[in-house]
Amino acid sequence: MKTDSGVQVSVLGLGAMGSALAGALVGAGHETTVWNRSPGKADDLVAQGARAAATAGDAVRSGRLVVVCLLDHGSVHEVLDPLAGELAGRTLVNVTTTTPDQSREMAAWAARAGVEYLDGGIMAVPQMIGRPGASILYSGSAEAFERYEPLLGVWGTGTYLGEDAGLASLYDLALLAGMYVMFAGFLHGAAMVAPTGATAGEFAAMAAPWLSSMTGAFEEFAAVVDGGDYTVEGQQSLVFSDLGDILAASSGQGISTEVVDMVQRLIRRQIDAGHGEEGFARIIESIRQPG
Amino acid sequence: MKTDSGVQVSVLGLGAMGSALAGALVGAGHETTVWNRSPGKADDLVAQGARAAATAGDAVRSGRLVVVCLLDHGSVHEVLDPLAGELAGRTLVNVTTTTPDQSREMAAWAARAGVEYLDGGIMAVPQMIGRPGASILYSGSAEAFERYEPLLGVWGTGTYLGEDAGLASLYDLALLAGMYVMFAGFLHGAAMVAPTGATAGEFAAMAAPWLSSMTGAFEEFAAVVDGGDYTVEGQQSLVFSDLGDILAASSGQGISTEVVDMVQRLIRRQIDAGHGEEGFARIIESIRQPG
Repeated sequence: MKTDSGVQVSVLGLGAMGSALAGALVGAGHETTVWNRSPGKADDLVAQGARAAATAGDAVRSGRLVVVCLLDHGSVHEVLDPLAGELAGRTLVNVTTTTPDQSREMAAWAARAGVEYLDGGIMAVPQMIGRPGASILYSGSAEAFERYEPLLGVWGTGTYLGEDAGLASLYDLALLAGMYVMFAGFLHGAAMVAPTGATAGEFAAMAAPWLSSMTGAFEEFAAVVDGGDYTVEGQQSLVFSDLGDILAASSGQGISTEVVDMVQRLIRRQIDAGHGEEGFARIIESIRQPG
Repeated sequence: MKTDSGVQVSVLGLGAMGSALAGALVGAGHETTVWNRSPGKADDLVAQGARAAATAGDAVRSGRLVVVCLLDHGSVHEVLDPLAGELAGRTLVNVTTTTPDQSREMAAWAARAGVEYLDGGIMAVPQMIGRPGASILYSGSAEAFERYEPLLGVWGTGTYLGEDAGLASLYDLALLAGMYVMFAGFLHGAAMVAPTGATAGEFAAMAAPWLSSMTGAFEEFAAVVDGGDYTVEGQQSLVFSDLGDILAASSGQGISTEVVDMVQRLIRRQIDAGHGEEGFARIIESIRQPG
């Protein structure tokens, strides 16, 4: 059974993301109830057509589908533990950022309470919700994902990863890891050129298309990693990837080298283990094996 | 004076990149002479219409414009030092990867020899030369850049950064730093999800559009950095950016946390200095000040 609109849905937690999710549901014509611990956050949504619940219990009772977007795993338990009985028979979509183990724990809690559970990882900033480019990962109940796919689709492209409720969080955190590391790399580059009088804005205008274009290399690295043979022809070798020039230039600009040192260590460990002529993708072996 | 075609140009060094540069020049109708230390590398280019020089001196004498694309700074001196007299009055474009200081040293060498000097940093892989997306940074002689801009344009979009010959290398290395760090971040994410049975290829298909889209944040970070006020409203705070969940999930997957630890340290130093409520872009201050 698929639902198109008119689903009774409740959103608990009206931070920037929760508000964006609720706003998209209201905009798509769903009967939306909202609740936030501290008052005043619901006013804009009520003006758009949402109903504000006075208590979390009131919100839970108003929704067939209950969406929680709270601060952290602890907040989810704090709000939902007293409401386990009222949640029974409903569907819970938890898009709160948690670790995979916390998502699995929440799924077990839901199973005990007779609640259908879907965990979500939102790969978007609030401003992107409901617009092209927003991607949301789900794991847990396949039935819940299938039943509510049209509703979930108002937020962005939904991808279902599997029954293990921890998968959405794991992929979410893996993609966020890539993002934070990329941000550090960008800011390292901006710090390198800053002493020449270049603004960070000028560097950003070069770095954004450059790094965007270089994401094209992921597929090649992945093919090598998945093939399990780092000696495949046509790769840039680890020896050739030595970052000595970048480190020297960074030191020459008087800045910390620690951002780039991290990559150099991954490279060095593979070279030291005798793999210097193999491809750059082999640094994943340095990551796989904690030192 | 601008040149459109028919420039006598020589390319010294026929590795993958040098060959791509020479091939593009031949294709654009320039009278191209090529030379490589070890023989056999010129055959394909000769078939396309290039002339193979027997010696580096022969190559230098055949070009008004002499392009060197060698292994490193030492190789450039090794090949060109004996030819300083013959280079006099010509224009040298050095696209060999070097540090900014090495580029400046080469510019000084060229000035003493009466050689017009332009340093280049190629922001592309060989396969991209002559295609959309290839970008090449130049610094050094403004006159040389202006005179040969149409010729240089056959390789990709040329950007002139200034008279300081070290600028192209500096920006090149700054952009490469961002790239290698991003690659490490991607491979960390791939290592995180691998134990679930996901292939690196599946993760690459999610990570490439995600990170590409997230380069959109560079401009905002840059505006904050350039504004010098990390307390501007609307930013994600350093405290909120704590990477504890990502680190816990990485450890939980049995992999090294060092890639993400690097970013966490940059964040922590700013929090410890009392800036926890300020924006994430402030980690550039951790990079600017070596610990």
